[in-house]
Amino acid sequence: MKKIEVCLSPELIHLYDLKDKIVVVVDIFRATTTMVTAFANDVKSILPLSSLEECRAMSDHGYIIAGERNGQTAEGFELGNSPLSYLNGAYSEKKIAMTTTNGTLTIEKSRKGSSEILVGAFINLKSTVHYLQTQGNDILIHCAGWKGKFNLEDSLYAGALVDGLSESHDYDCDSAIATRSLYLQNKHDLTAFLQQASHAKRLQNHNIEADIDFCLTMDIYNIVVKVVDGELVKNK
Amino acid sequence: MKKIEVCLSPELIHLYDLKDKIVVVVDIFRATTTMVTAFANDVKSILPLSSLEECRAMSDHGYIIAGERNGQTAEGFELGNSPLSYLNGAYSEKKIAMTTTNGTLTIEKSRKGSSEILVGAFINLKSTVHYLQTQGNDILIHCAGWKGKFNLEDSLYAGALVDGLSESHDYDCDSAIATRSLYLQNKHDLTAFLQQASHAKRLQNHNIEADIDFCLTMDIYNIVVKVVDGELVKNK
Repeated sequence: MKKIEVCLSPELIHLYDLKDKIVVVVDIFRATTTMVTAFANDVKSILPLSSLEECRAMSDHGYIIAGERNGQTAEGFELGNSPLSYLNGAYSEKKIAMTTTNGTLTIEKSRKGSSEILVGAFINLKSTVHYLQTQGNDILIHCAGWKGKFNLEDSLYAGALVDGLSESHDYDCDSAIATRSLYLQNKHDLTAFLQQASHAKRLQNHNIEADIDFCLTMDIYNIVVKVVDGELVKNK
Repeated sequence: MKKIEVCLSPELIHLYDLKDKIVVVVDIFRATTTMVTAFANDVKSILPLSSLEECRAMSDHGYIIAGERNGQTAEGFELGNSPLSYLNGAYSEKKIAMTTTNGTLTIEKSRKGSSEILVGAFINLKSTVHYLQTQGNDILIHCAGWKGKFNLEDSLYAGALVDGLSESHDYDCDSAIATRSLYLQNKHDLTAFLQQASHAKRLQNHNIEADIDFCLTMDIYNIVVKVVDGELVKNK
């Protein structure tokens, strides 16, 4: 039986063997939710970059630049990190260069030997489950966390994905068991549970309640997003 | 209001500010359970050491040496890491030098600026709660995990301690919220829940079911154990 594991923070990823695994990167608030939304609204590609400088430089090469640090749009960037900016095909057929506080770094750290990298969010949970069930590889869910620390929202997504795969995959990894239990305990009201969380509080301070609600909505989109040659694309 | 935070692994401890905090180290299977049991059975002191070599050398200085790696007694050591070895005052008034796979390293990493280090276990949970309620410092629970990774049993203890302090302390740290939820969900049958866990399985392979049952029993002892000048002692 194929296996599923959960890594709770990029600061722990060196403890995991990524070889031949499909790594699912998650940063619910908001990088991976934004990436999935962007593809569901027909952007052409997203280039994830670690630094603001690299990202800014791409505006001279035909890219729309999206830059966020600590929950806010970085100076001089057209886009921040709100999924809502991409709705109604606002950036249809555009190439996006994107850097975020936690999400893009987590993608970068997911490469070493992995067979494939996906980005996942609650808004395309079922599609990701179905895709993974058709693949022969073991799976590692890589939570972006917040500046290296564990966070609730990414762990809840990890638990939801483990739960979705619990009949097709072994999950005897302790963090998979824990996140699944956490998700099952709180799935009936993720919003209320997350209102206690530090990062949700941080986002609330930035007046983005609409973003939070959107990020916690299940299965809006029926697409899978993956990394191909360093760029994010919609799976055909 | 005083604060309580949870660090899920020694690999994440550099992300936390330890200054003036009371750090509670937990390694349920079995280092901290064994330490508490040893003091409840009247050992004089325990010297926690990182390496087998340092520990072995202490046998020439009047110490009983206890050494464990990967769940088994290290070669040439009188004691391994079973709490049951200390029952009935078997090592009463003895000085113990101890090294374990995860627990002693976690104590070592808890020093930087902290005001005090305790070691805790389910077997003295209430005593530790009561002691912490009388102190003015913020608290950080430091889970030993397993070779750097998150583990279930230490996280469940963290959740139990957060729950015990939830009326006297703020716990808006995401890992405190998550471990408390995990504990509340599973406290009615910790043993069954933990049977899924990787480390419990590892220990079962070593035929130490009795140790596991003992490690998961609540409030057997009414003592608090702390580090003073590098040695563990019973709090007066």
